[in-house]
Amino acid sequence: MRHFYNLAEETPETVGNLLAAAARFKADPISGELAGKQFALLFLAPSLRTRCSFEVAIRQLRGGVTTLEPSMFYGLEMRDGVRMDGDLAEHIREAVPVLSRFYTGLGLRIMAGGTDREADLGDFRFGQFLRHATVPVFSMESALFHPCQALADLLTIRELLGEIGRRRITITWAPHPRPLPTAVPNSILLAAAQMGMRVTLARPEGFDLPEDVMTRARDLSRQAGGEIEISDDQASAVRGAEIVYAKSWGALARYRSQEDEQKLREAAGDWTVDGSLMSRTAEACFMHCLPVRRNVVVTDEVLDGPRSAVVEQAENRLHAQKAMLAWLYA
Amino acid sequence: MRHFYNLAEETPETVGNLLAAAARFKADPISGELAGKQFALLFLAPSLRTRCSFEVAIRQLRGGVTTLEPSMFYGLEMRDGVRMDGDLAEHIREAVPVLSRFYTGLGLRIMAGGTDREADLGDFRFGQFLRHATVPVFSMESALFHPCQALADLLTIRELLGEIGRRRITITWAPHPRPLPTAVPNSILLAAAQMGMRVTLARPEGFDLPEDVMTRARDLSRQAGGEIEISDDQASAVRGAEIVYAKSWGALARYRSQEDEQKLREAAGDWTVDGSLMSRTAEACFMHCLPVRRNVVVTDEVLDGPRSAVVEQAENRLHAQKAMLAWLYA
Amino acid sequence: MRHFYNLAEETPETVGNLLAAAARFKADPISGELAGKQFALLFLAPSLRTRCSFEVAIRQLRGGVTTLEPSMFYGLEMRDGVRMDGDLAEHIREAVPVLSRFYTGLGLRIMAGGTDREADLGDFRFGQFLRHATVPVFSMESALFHPCQALADLLTIRELLGEIGRRRITITWAPHPRPLPTAVPNSILLAAAQMGMRVTLARPEGFDLPEDVMTRARDLSRQAGGEIEISDDQASAVRGAEIVYAKSWGALARYRSQEDEQKLREAAGDWTVDGSLMSRTAEACFMHCLPVRRNVVVTDEVLDGPRSAVVEQAENRLHAQKAMLAWLYA
Repeated sequence: MRHFYNLAEETPETVGNLLAAAARFKADPISGELAGKQFALLFLAPSLRTRCSFEVAIRQLRGGVTTLEPSMFYGLEMRDGVRMDGDLAEHIREAVPVLSRFYTGLGLRIMAGGTDREADLGDFRFGQFLRHATVPVFSMESALFHPCQALADLLTIRELLGEIGRRRITITWAPHPRPLPTAVPNSILLAAAQMGMRVTLARPEGFDLPEDVMTRARDLSRQAGGEIEISDDQASAVRGAEIVYAKSWGALARYRSQEDEQKLREAAGDWTVDGSLMSRTAEACFMHCLPVRRNVVVTDEVLDGPRSAVVEQAENRLHAQKAMLAWLYA
Repeated sequence: MRHFYNLAEETPETVGNLLAAAARFKADPISGELAGKQFALLFLAPSLRTRCSFEVAIRQLRGGVTTLEPSMFYGLEMRDGVRMDGDLAEHIREAVPVLSRFYTGLGLRIMAGGTDREADLGDFRFGQFLRHATVPVFSMESALFHPCQALADLLTIRELLGEIGRRRITITWAPHPRPLPTAVPNSILLAAAQMGMRVTLARPEGFDLPEDVMTRARDLSRQAGGEIEISDDQASAVRGAEIVYAKSWGALARYRSQEDEQKLREAAGDWTVDGSLMSRTAEACFMHCLPVRRNVVVTDEVLDGPRSAVVEQAENRLHAQKAMLAWLYA
Repeated sequence: MRHFYNLAEETPETVGNLLAAAARFKADPISGELAGKQFALLFLAPSLRTRCSFEVAIRQLRGGVTTLEPSMFYGLEMRDGVRMDGDLAEHIREAVPVLSRFYTGLGLRIMAGGTDREADLGDFRFGQFLRHATVPVFSMESALFHPCQALADLLTIRELLGEIGRRRITITWAPHPRPLPTAVPNSILLAAAQMGMRVTLARPEGFDLPEDVMTRARDLSRQAGGEIEISDDQASAVRGAEIVYAKSWGALARYRSQEDEQKLREAAGDWTVDGSLMSRTAEACFMHCLPVRRNVVVTDEVLDGPRSAVVEQAENRLHAQKAMLAWLYA
């Protein structure tokens, strides 16, 4: 039994097959791969795009889908061995095996909590689910990875540039009023590395991505013949970029002190992607996973401009997810 | 691309065709007009009848449906040009185009807020959605109109009276503990006018419907050879009525002062529709869009009596909506 | 028109047929009994297993399903004759007949409120729904009964023991941080009695089940040639048991004083089912309806042990419910 948890764990061949399948589903959206199969989508964090694209994907492949909202799930105990005399009414040791009996597959979103560094960096809660599932599980975003987003992003880049390997992408940190998780930047960095892109990762001091992710990205990049550069100078980091991929995330300092983290974030308030920055690129397309804070992460000018790919990128979630579902369950 | 926003904008021929189709769907509920098509229902206000009747309508026509609850949508920014550094995480400039990529059609409910007169009378928020949608949108109630209710009402009246034109309807304001929007009275007034009914609109001083709506209703009525009378004397207004259509709404004063509005509403506390009032009619049937406050808007005696059409009227939402969906998307 | 409200109201022949059908659905999960039919599941209390198992059951029989969450329904007035000028916007006298027009069948969960003894013991709110429904209604748990759980439990017992009649079951009260309803213990007691099992009901002083339920259970047991013993000594009550069915419930004292009830419950804190207790049985299987408080109701050791049947028991909800749905609606 295999799960879909981190795109970078799959072989380049599998990734290639998934991209080819996604393109086919984009051309021909309705088929029967999931006929007679039932799926549950478990959201322990809110969702619009992910929920809608998965519901449509599953129904267009003739499967059935139950969406379970956050309110139903905050009550789940995930720690082993505890005496459950508090607020939590159910343990995942029962909940996940039981759902595995009802459904062909389970989709799960559990984001980083932002308070327990080890739990987040170890993807503790997602791991507990995987451990107790007896059917294949796909991630709709964990504390560490957002593999469906990464797959949709690769499809988008290939559509925009014709090919992926050796093309230049700058992944840039951006301002935001809250300290967000790193799942999306981790996943696009790994995916770009795995495909042999020439990657520049631009972030202010203090906003490094997790060490394990960086090490893995460098390994993948080396194997694929790509490059990874790190920069704390946004203006120079976008020079030559064919893709500018913006995303905000919180500093590691958030696990020590929310105030320190907020100061770090506010100090980099001028990292908003704007027309002036985009003019330094090689006519780069602009990408972002959405939702996006207008005029904080990126200006209206860039987002509403002709080289913004964000709506296409979101649409590609649908097609990429069908490819993943058919691969995992058909 | 057309939307379904205000029934009174459609030609009498279209309305006639929709009514005929609704009657056909009532006789024969299951067919395949929406096979392979996916719909999202976006509720920015709670719903029971509307949600259920649309979900059933879409599935009985073999389409797929996602219902998005209020909790997912209060976070949407609708104003242009703002710096999004507050609570709202997503702009409709992304959300609506992305949903348009996933779905064949979008249904939307955004009721009047009751605080910003210009926004409500201009249907600002609904208009922002329409502006950014790239697929046909149908209204499940906006600040100004409830076109599916109006279509179901016409179907009900035709069933009750055999025909619609020249028949006598009294639309009467009724008491309520809260200042409700005018979408339903606006829409039944316009629909009755458009069909050439002899309409009496009974409301206490201070409870006029929006001027634009009144003007449009008078135009439609004139074109169709009908009549519109306004009255502030409920008892005389129901004389000769074949349909009594009750509905509460808030006074325009609510945009100035909630206290003033409440005083106006409480002063008309004796407008409850009761058996004594109904006995002055020409054995009128009683209609109301539901939900209804028993013994405030109307007495148990009338609501549970043999000439109450409210359950049939609610059922007709299902059939009317199928007609609209098939017209817009088949 | 019949409803599915209390399994013990059905004849042994019907129960036998339902169990046979459930076993067939377990072997062959997909068929077309509900093709073209639409169902609404109304949850006035949260749900995970029940919601998921019903959604899957209905879709696997090719029906359509709408799930209505608690937030939509707390606003329903259920008392007759009231002036509705408070918070509740809709009366079930309209809501239930209207839903009956849209749907082939309605599923309903309304648990005991725990404050109004007569309302709970009379299943007042569930009864109001039944009274106004014009299509068959099935219970997904009322204040008094959980008939789908009971049917799934019988299926599980038959799978575990090969037959049901004359086998030994001990239904034991267990500790819990909150005073839970009696619907589950009522229903397993009645079902076991009806099947002629040798039943021991173990509970601390003060935790008797409702008198009407006990009387009915004794009648059913006599008719079926079974036995019912009551015990307040848990250790001796499990001797010879082939099934230990654990469940917590609140004392009747809760209707008088929450504090008194809590004291009673805490005084019996040593009723947790553990390995030592299970070792006194005839190698009994352990059953519980879930969700279960680990190390409060039952220890990890028992729940994770080889004779725990709780996951199979939960899976059987799916198959039992299909049998019920096909019986009521096909």
